[in-house]
Amino acid sequence: MTYCVAVRVDQGLVMLSDTRTNAGMDNIARFRKSFTYHVPGERAITLMCSGNLSITQGVKATLSKAIKESKLDPDVETILNCDTMHRAAQIVGDAMQKMQQRYRENIEMGGSGSGASIMIAGQRKGGKPRLYLIYSAGNFIEATEDTPFFQIGEHKYGKPILDRIIQRETTLEDATKAVLVSMDSTLRSNLSVGMPLDLTVIATDAFDFRVRTRIEADNEEFAMISQSWSAALRKGFEDLPNVLD
Amino acid sequence: MTYCVAVRVDQGLVMLSDTRTNAGMDNIARFRKSFTYHVPGERAITLMCSGNLSITQGVKATLSKAIKESKLDPDVETILNCDTMHRAAQIVGDAMQKMQQRYRENIEMGGSGSGASIMIAGQRKGGKPRLYLIYSAGNFIEATEDTPFFQIGEHKYGKPILDRIIQRETTLEDATKAVLVSMDSTLRSNLSVGMPLDLTVIATDAFDFRVRTRIEADNEEFAMISQSWSAALRKGFEDLPNVLD
Repeated sequence: MTYCVAVRVDQGLVMLSDTRTNAGMDNIARFRKSFTYHVPGERAITLMCSGNLSITQGVKATLSKAIKESKLDPDVETILNCDTMHRAAQIVGDAMQKMQQRYRENIEMGGSGSGASIMIAGQRKGGKPRLYLIYSAGNFIEATEDTPFFQIGEHKYGKPILDRIIQRETTLEDATKAVLVSMDSTLRSNLSVGMPLDLTVIATDAFDFRVRTRIEADNEEFAMISQSWSAALRKGFEDLPNVLD
Repeated sequence: MTYCVAVRVDQGLVMLSDTRTNAGMDNIARFRKSFTYHVPGERAITLMCSGNLSITQGVKATLSKAIKESKLDPDVETILNCDTMHRAAQIVGDAMQKMQQRYRENIEMGGSGSGASIMIAGQRKGGKPRLYLIYSAGNFIEATEDTPFFQIGEHKYGKPILDRIIQRETTLEDATKAVLVSMDSTLRSNLSVGMPLDLTVIATDAFDFRVRTRIEADNEEFAMISQSWSAALRKGFEDLPNVLD
């Protein structure tokens, strides 16, 4: 499985993904699920993928091919030169649709699932930071003030902390801590989600990545977050009022 | 959906369930999912059910019918007079199998699922406290020292806190707090799980219920647990080290 979480707050965008994939419990591999696209000073975009890996890799290949072609022919539309983030989401959705049309039937005949979802988060100069969730059918939804975060994959373990913390006013610092804590809870409770992690932070109107880093299993800052959170939960739990007489 | 959680620690057994059922999002009802059976001073048993309601009600009716019959004919074996808790789990499993054989095919032809699971927790005089999880096929597993809790229904939201807290040495007080916190997280993140709650606590070698109560939406102790936990999470979160420079 996978766990990816993306947050849109007033101060910007935070994206975090794990790197574990599995075809059954005994065929576990490591694949990057976060991908960044960038025109310095003009736009910064992060894509995060879950679901059928051949489908999402196909989508990514389609996007990359267009970007390569656009260097020779500027008329080729890509997520790096399109007018709006909304249009970028459409381009990803179109690539998804194409991949599904090409492979879904055969994948399902083989007894596997072709389902996939992709989050695209970013900002282009002249627009606002945007976050979209694209489904297998190529359709998509956008994160709003009421629902400022999206999760894909194993989302349930890590949802309670996001429900409590994330609002549009949440700072970029707190949003980053919240997604790390959310991932930490998921890692502890579900074997199919695993280190290392890929973290991206895009501050509003920076049109660049404030953070674009891989967090390895021995990362000290993440270990500190994880341990502090454990200690805080334990302390908070001990301080709860007793309900048995 | 449903959320039921049962814990077996050295000091005894703790069982908690919600009461919401739904056939689709727009057909929400309230049904008890916890049921207690009791021979004072000899045995105390709690059953908790999730899944297809007609199936689990059928299982319960089968168990109750046998108990009624055994009052006239003591040779009728029931969960209240059988030799061991293991045998009680078998009796529940047999009733489950009978219901599935009778209805599964027709239920599935109608496009619904007949899947159900039942937890049975209790202790009889001469035995130890036991906790079993019975599947749709009537087969079952027992909670062990390594895995001292079971969850059925919407289990993921509330699993992280149990993973952190519950061990066989955990006190009955802490186990009770932990299942309440686990339920609180689930209630906050999933609409298909709802108040009121049914809580049962069976202390080891008491052969009686220490707690057997319904926790209504306006219950002050639960509200206090919920608020204290929220405050502790918020405080713990604020105290986390910053990861952005």
